[in-house]
Order: sequence, then C-alpha cells, then structure tokens
Amino acid sequence: MKILSVQSSAGMERSLTRKLSADFLDLLKLGLQQVEIEELDLVKCPPPFVTSEWIAGAFSKKELTELQRKALARSDEFIGQIEAADLIIIGTPMYNYGMPAVLKAWFDQIARISKTFSFDLSRGDFPIEPVLSGKKLLVFTASGEFEFQKGGIRESINHLVPHIKSLTHFLGVTDEKDFYHVGIEYQEFKDERYERSKNEAFANLAKLVDEILIDFLIRKY
Amino acid sequence: MKILSVQSSAGMERSLTRKLSADFLDLLKLGLQQVEIEELDLVKCPPPFVTSEWIAGAFSKKELTELQRKALARSDEFIGQIEAADLIIIGTPMYNYGMPAVLKAWFDQIARISKTFSFDLSRGDFPIEPVLSGKKLLVFTASGEFEFQKGGIRESINHLVPHIKSLTHFLGVTDEKDFYHVGIEYQEFKDERYERSKNEAFANLAKLVDEILIDFLIRKY
Repeated sequence: MKILSVQSSAGMERSLTRKLSADFLDLLKLGLQQVEIEELDLVKCPPPFVTSEWIAGAFSKKELTELQRKALARSDEFIGQIEAADLIIIGTPMYNYGMPAVLKAWFDQIARISKTFSFDLSRGDFPIEPVLSGKKLLVFTASGEFEFQKGGIRESINHLVPHIKSLTHFLGVTDEKDFYHVGIEYQEFKDERYERSKNEAFANLAKLVDEILIDFLIRKY
Repeated sequence: MKILSVQSSAGMERSLTRKLSADFLDLLKLGLQQVEIEELDLVKCPPPFVTSEWIAGAFSKKELTELQRKALARSDEFIGQIEAADLIIIGTPMYNYGMPAVLKAWFDQIARISKTFSFDLSRGDFPIEPVLSGKKLLVFTASGEFEFQKGGIRESINHLVPHIKSLTHFLGVTDEKDFYHVGIEYQEFKDERYERSKNEAFANLAKLVDEILIDFLIRKY
C-alpha cells in the first residue's frame, strides 16, 4: 500500500493530528508488511502560493515558458505524489474555522486542469469532472471548540471537513465510502470532554486500520 | 474615512475583484474628500505562514524571545492596519470553493488572542469574544461556477463568503448590517449569464458607495 501523509499542523511535536497520523501508520505497519510512506510536511516545506505565471502556465495550450515551468514545478511534484498513492492521509488542525493556510496552499497547487480535473462546457452547468480515481482519504482533525458536525451548534461555521469534502475529487476520492474522518474536539477547554474526545479518537485507530486494510486487500485481490 | 483594501487575486490586472475594488474606491473618492487608503496586496507581498514560534509567541505570558517577536512582526503590522481602518475591503476570487491561500494566511495572521479576540472559559461553551468593533467590511468575490448563495445548487460547497462571515469578528465587524458583499459568478462559462452577473455587480457600485457613505457620515456626526 502506498501512502501519502500530508501534515499541516504548526504545533509540530505537540500536535494531536500529527500524533494521530503517526499512531495510525504504526498500527498499519503491524498489519501489512508492504507499506510505502511518502511524508509531506507542509509546515517544514511550505507550498508556494499561486501566481499569475502559475495560472498562465496551467491554462496554456502552448509550450510553457521557463517562468511558467518553474511556477508549476511544485504543483507537478505534489500531483505526482497523489497519483502514486493508494491512501492519502491529511493531518489538519482547525485554524480559524478552516484549514491552515499551508494546507489551502497545497490544495491550490494540486487543483490543476487536465491533471486532477477536466472542464468541458458541453457537460452543461456542471462542467467539472475528476481525472483521478480509486484513492482513499483519511482526515485527522483537531479543533479548539466543539460540535462542528451536522446538526451541531457550530455546524454553520465549520469550513474544515466540509471544505475538504468539496475537494476530494481532485485527490481521486470519488466514492463517499473512501472518505474517513477522525476528529478531536474541545482542545481549548482542557476538560473531561476533551480527554474523552481525545481518548476515543486514539482508541478507534486500530478499528480504522482494520477497516481500511480489509477494503484495500479485497479490492486488490 | 480610513480604508484598508486587501487584495488576494493572482489574476492581477485581469482580476474582476481587483477591478471592482478599484472602481468602488474611485467612486468613493468622488463622494468624500477625506479618504485615506491603505493598499495591502497579498499576492505581491505574501503573508508568512503560522509557525511554532508564532504560536508560542502569541500565547506567551512572558517577554517574547527575539524569534517570537520576529515571527509575530507581520501579524502586528496587519492588526495595526485593521485597527486603523473604518472600512475594510477584501477582494477575493473563489479558489477551489474557498479563499485563496494568501487570504487564509492573512486571516491566520490577524486572529490573535488579546489583540483581535479574547478567550475566557468563565464564559462557558462560547469563550471567544471580539476585541475590535465598529468596522465595516465589504467583500468583492468572483467565482467560475454559480449559485453558491443560500438555497442555491452549490450552497453546500461554498466555503468563501460563509467562511469570511465566520471570521468577521476578528476584523471588528460585529453587526451584520456592517457586512457588504458583491459577487460575480459564471466566470468560467463566459456566457450571457456571466455578462449579466458582471454588469450588475459594476452597475451596483454607485448605490453601494452611497449606502456606505451615508451610514458612515451618520455615525460620525
């Protein structure tokens, strides 16, 4: 199984989403011998922002200029990592009700016409279709506040998981059952609700590994 | 009137949100002599990403280290610009159903405990309150697709204006009537719906200037 692990927490060794990702990978390696992991640490090595050269290059139908090629180099690299992966892990804290800017910068780099989506006006009012397929996505989140889920008191200000869900087609995750999410809440409250939320998330990792492994092996053989 | 204009489109001279902002400001200057404009071009001068030093410094109760001071320098500058403004203009295209990463990087810089919000667990389950107040916010958006509004076919994947609305308290915009939004849709369709959407947005600028000016002058005198 080839795994791309994308980490975006600036909390580094204190980060819950980095710890969840690491523990998940440790458990997975116990269950499966052939695991190749590509680590992409967006905090240690931040993606560039999209520029006018990037846009011109991405939409160009001619040979790219040197500037355009350079502007798209990291994008090419990031997309190659996605193409190679069976499972993509995203570790992301909630920063200001959405993803950290480094993670949005990564998504802005990997959303590329002809590479991760196609655009065709003959399809009518829904002209966008994904290019990649057959990937699984596992998202680990941590938030200071709580009840961001559907029907929760903070549902309307949750722009983290629902936003990532709007972008899964770029990652080749086209079936809802290939999307997994484990979240820790109440981080800023430091109370027993936080302890419970954290303990539950870590305790569920073994079951999650089994679920993902079985589905992967069934599909493969 | 002091205005902070925050621009985030990498489309530069081709950008609709930059053109809307510029035209709005030109009209405003016709109606009011004393207008001071601070231009913040996030594409030309990108904000840094949040780092572990940034977090440690922001939450520190001791004197900051040299590294922490440096990590927070742009944040201090950005917050100073907000504090000085009566009206904040944000020009933002929709990139991948949300704001461009440069704009999220700016929001991540300006969300600062004690500076733009306070956090107090004695407030119970809603411990966050804004620090600033009395500002107006005008958001210009442009999107390739359409019907992202409440009840629209793409409402559930709109993480641009609803996300910004979740963050207005950091900007001192605490009253819903101080939030203004003008959006152009259908940009990728290049059809008559796009032309209509664009023409309407530009045609409404004069009325918008009047509305904002009258409210500003009433409040002032």
